[in-house]
Amino acid sequence: MSMLHRLRAEPLTREAFQDFGDVVDCNGVTPVTINAGFAQRFNDLARVDVGEAAGRAGISVFQARPRPLPIMLDLMERHPLGSQAFVPLTPDPFVIVVAPAGDAFSLRDLKAFVTRGSQGCSYARGVWHHPLIALVPQSFLVVDRLGDGANLDERPFDVHVEVVLPDALTS
Amino acid sequence: MSMLHRLRAEPLTREAFQDFGDVVDCNGVTPVTINAGFAQRFNDLARVDVGEAAGRAGISVFQARPRPLPIMLDLMERHPLGSQAFVPLTPDPFVIVVAPAGDAFSLRDLKAFVTRGSQGCSYARGVWHHPLIALVPQSFLVVDRLGDGANLDERPFDVHVEVVLPDALTS
Repeated sequence: MSMLHRLRAEPLTREAFQDFGDVVDCNGVTPVTINAGFAQRFNDLARVDVGEAAGRAGISVFQARPRPLPIMLDLMERHPLGSQAFVPLTPDPFVIVVAPAGDAFSLRDLKAFVTRGSQGCSYARGVWHHPLIALVPQSFLVVDRLGDGANLDERPFDVHVEVVLPDALTS
Repeated sequence: MSMLHRLRAEPLTREAFQDFGDVVDCNGVTPVTINAGFAQRFNDLARVDVGEAAGRAGISVFQARPRPLPIMLDLMERHPLGSQAFVPLTPDPFVIVVAPAGDAFSLRDLKAFVTRGSQGCSYARGVWHHPLIALVPQSFLVVDRLGDGANLDERPFDVHVEVVLPDALTS
């Protein structure tokens, strides 16, 4: 019989996410006034890394359907050739599960986060992450590397992993 | 006394915008199913062009305040070193004014567009465009070139240019 590993989702913050990539969030960022006062620029919130291999950055949209509760994870994936940013086009919280870049990770390396709704994230190149975990039907703007090359590794779990959400998101 | 040039805004479509860049829009795009059926990927909706000069793509947020009506234009700008994409984070229409890339443009080259709310756009490198024209307070995800180099040219108008919006947006 398979073990059950429970992973508690914590609020997404820049500090907690710094080993995994960038948080796309205007909160705490001082903007620059541009366009004769008609816009504030919150600059350079997430790096776009397309690595050294031939390839380019592209803009795509992912439309996600919600995961059933409880959230059970099957696998993690990584993109060895570039970063991948997800910015929600509706202000709904979503769930992020990551493990540090490297050839392998253990269950104890997994971290789960839940966004505030106005936050997005960018996974740094090679960082292990679970595919999109939306809680409601939700679209995301995605900025990632396009082009030839093997840019997807997957690692299935051999145990059951459950993400425990804050009570406010499950009631 | 200065002349008045009136510019009628038309609906944004890929066809009408093709000389100026890309429309970020899932409409009419066949997605690819990914994430074991939990997401649809609308792939490669806009190119990210950071040119040949040293520089990199970055992700920023612009928070725009609405322009007063009637919309009067002062100037156009262009970014000679890279593309610049704007994707709204709320589904409100905004206004786009462009002229083809080149050292100069004439009033008759100007085109105005209004988005459907779910559309964004990316100005191709060197394409003349007006700074953000929001009709309500609105945030945009911006993907553009960051780094050293002179990446902004501005051309003030010597006539008054007014954008005439569809009636539905002004009543």
